[in-house]
Amino acid sequence: MPTTPVLEQQAHPFDQALALQSQGGDDFLGHTSPAYWNMVGPFGGMLAALALKAVMQHTDRLGEPVSLTVNYAAAMAPGPFQVQARAARTSRSTQHWIIELRQDDAAGVAQTVLTATALTAVRRSTWGASEIAMPDVPRAQDVHGASGVLPLEWLKRYDLRFVSGKLPRTAPGETDAPLPLDVPSVTRLWMRDEPPRALDFCSLAAFADVFYPRIFLRRPKRVPVGTVSMTVYFHARGGELKGCGSGFLLGQARGQVFHDGFLDQSAHLWSESGRLLVTSSQIVYYKE
Amino acid sequence: MPTTPVLEQQAHPFDQALALQSQGGDDFLGHTSPAYWNMVGPFGGMLAALALKAVMQHTDRLGEPVSLTVNYAAAMAPGPFQVQARAARTSRSTQHWIIELRQDDAAGVAQTVLTATALTAVRRSTWGASEIAMPDVPRAQDVHGASGVLPLEWLKRYDLRFVSGKLPRTAPGETDAPLPLDVPSVTRLWMRDEPPRALDFCSLAAFADVFYPRIFLRRPKRVPVGTVSMTVYFHARGGELKGCGSGFLLGQARGQVFHDGFLDQSAHLWSESGRLLVTSSQIVYYKE
Repeated sequence: MPTTPVLEQQAHPFDQALALQSQGGDDFLGHTSPAYWNMVGPFGGMLAALALKAVMQHTDRLGEPVSLTVNYAAAMAPGPFQVQARAARTSRSTQHWIIELRQDDAAGVAQTVLTATALTAVRRSTWGASEIAMPDVPRAQDVHGASGVLPLEWLKRYDLRFVSGKLPRTAPGETDAPLPLDVPSVTRLWMRDEPPRALDFCSLAAFADVFYPRIFLRRPKRVPVGTVSMTVYFHARGGELKGCGSGFLLGQARGQVFHDGFLDQSAHLWSESGRLLVTSSQIVYYKE
Repeated sequence: MPTTPVLEQQAHPFDQALALQSQGGDDFLGHTSPAYWNMVGPFGGMLAALALKAVMQHTDRLGEPVSLTVNYAAAMAPGPFQVQARAARTSRSTQHWIIELRQDDAAGVAQTVLTATALTAVRRSTWGASEIAMPDVPRAQDVHGASGVLPLEWLKRYDLRFVSGKLPRTAPGETDAPLPLDVPSVTRLWMRDEPPRALDFCSLAAFADVFYPRIFLRRPKRVPVGTVSMTVYFHARGGELKGCGSGFLLGQARGQVFHDGFLDQSAHLWSESGRLLVTSSQIVYYKE
């Protein structure tokens, strides 16, 4: 009998959570993963990765991801779910996708829990530039790990090393202490899968959602929150991502507007060597 | 016979272009408007407005727009088109929409030309703040109009007054003269419908797309371009928009990354009184 070490036999938790069984055509089956559980459902980044995974796994796919918008329509229950990924339009070099995740309700009727659209494209080499330089920060190995700030299972799947803008601690009964408005709600942190995993488009989509809602930085009072829509733009080809290996990414997030129950925040992800790989934005529901 | 003046009888060109006939349920019929024609199809902002209009006109709609993502899948021909707007999931206070625009091809088969998702929600009053102050610029009435920079029909439907970052002029044979990378590709301009029209969610969606692609500012050489996806977050209620009347908006756009055929740019829209009404981002195809 072969004596392969256990570690080599077992897929990375991220890949286990991403596993989709093709049902032929546009349809796939998946199962929520307790390893990426958030407060009341799967980590939103994991769901973004799953929506993209269905596209990546689709036999008709043309090219690589350029943009992805994921809309979180309802809380998901632990258990199986269906994914449908349909190429709504395919041109010579681009392809537009519509994706839906559904779960059966108590009566066995499939209900939409997530909608998404994505663009894949065959990229060609062109003139290029980046206007947003990576901030000058200490190297990842010189920054202390800070996972487990909140007791959430998915946080254990990431090695998060905060450079600035760490989640403020709150104590029961503590009153609001908003940041002065001339201090931007910026968080900078190094991030990597735990255990390390080679970067790809699906993990990039998940990394775009690791930032906690900016309202927790502006108002230490913890109010109920939930991302309702996230858009991710990919600025690299698959080959370039491979070149990043399982290195750290530097992430930066900043809030823009907080108004009547919804805030938006923008995010940037750089490779360890300073390439801006992802720009992203999301809009987040908050109560009070 | 009544002697109503002609001006009062005729709808604003924007409303004429937005007209959708309900076909019952999720289906609507529209017709492209020559008044908002761009290079090879309708102005993308008009199409974003049309996708949102189908939601606004839908009898099942709950609440007001919070986010909208529009994907431009194919060039549109002059003529009729079908819109389908489906509420994929409705909760107590939020509703997720999937929208598709289709046009018949030569063989009479309906082909998707645009996909979109939107979130509408019943907003509640909460704590709020804006981190992005309106830039300090001259008032709209003190800035010269600059419509008609390019000979495009849709530009005649807007009163655009550039404060900075006007489209550079190019001459045949002119060589590339990229901006130094430490100079951001920022454009600031006042904008208003021409003739003036009271602000609403549909016109806001269109305003988010009036900025020319940032690559024209970085590289005066004109290469073929086209927005492939735009996301718009609305940070105001309908009542607040009504309060803006037909006043000017201040818009600001900035490029972030230009890489292998796709660039992304972010945009902000403030009311004349300085309220940040919209944050937006888009990803644009470019050649060479």
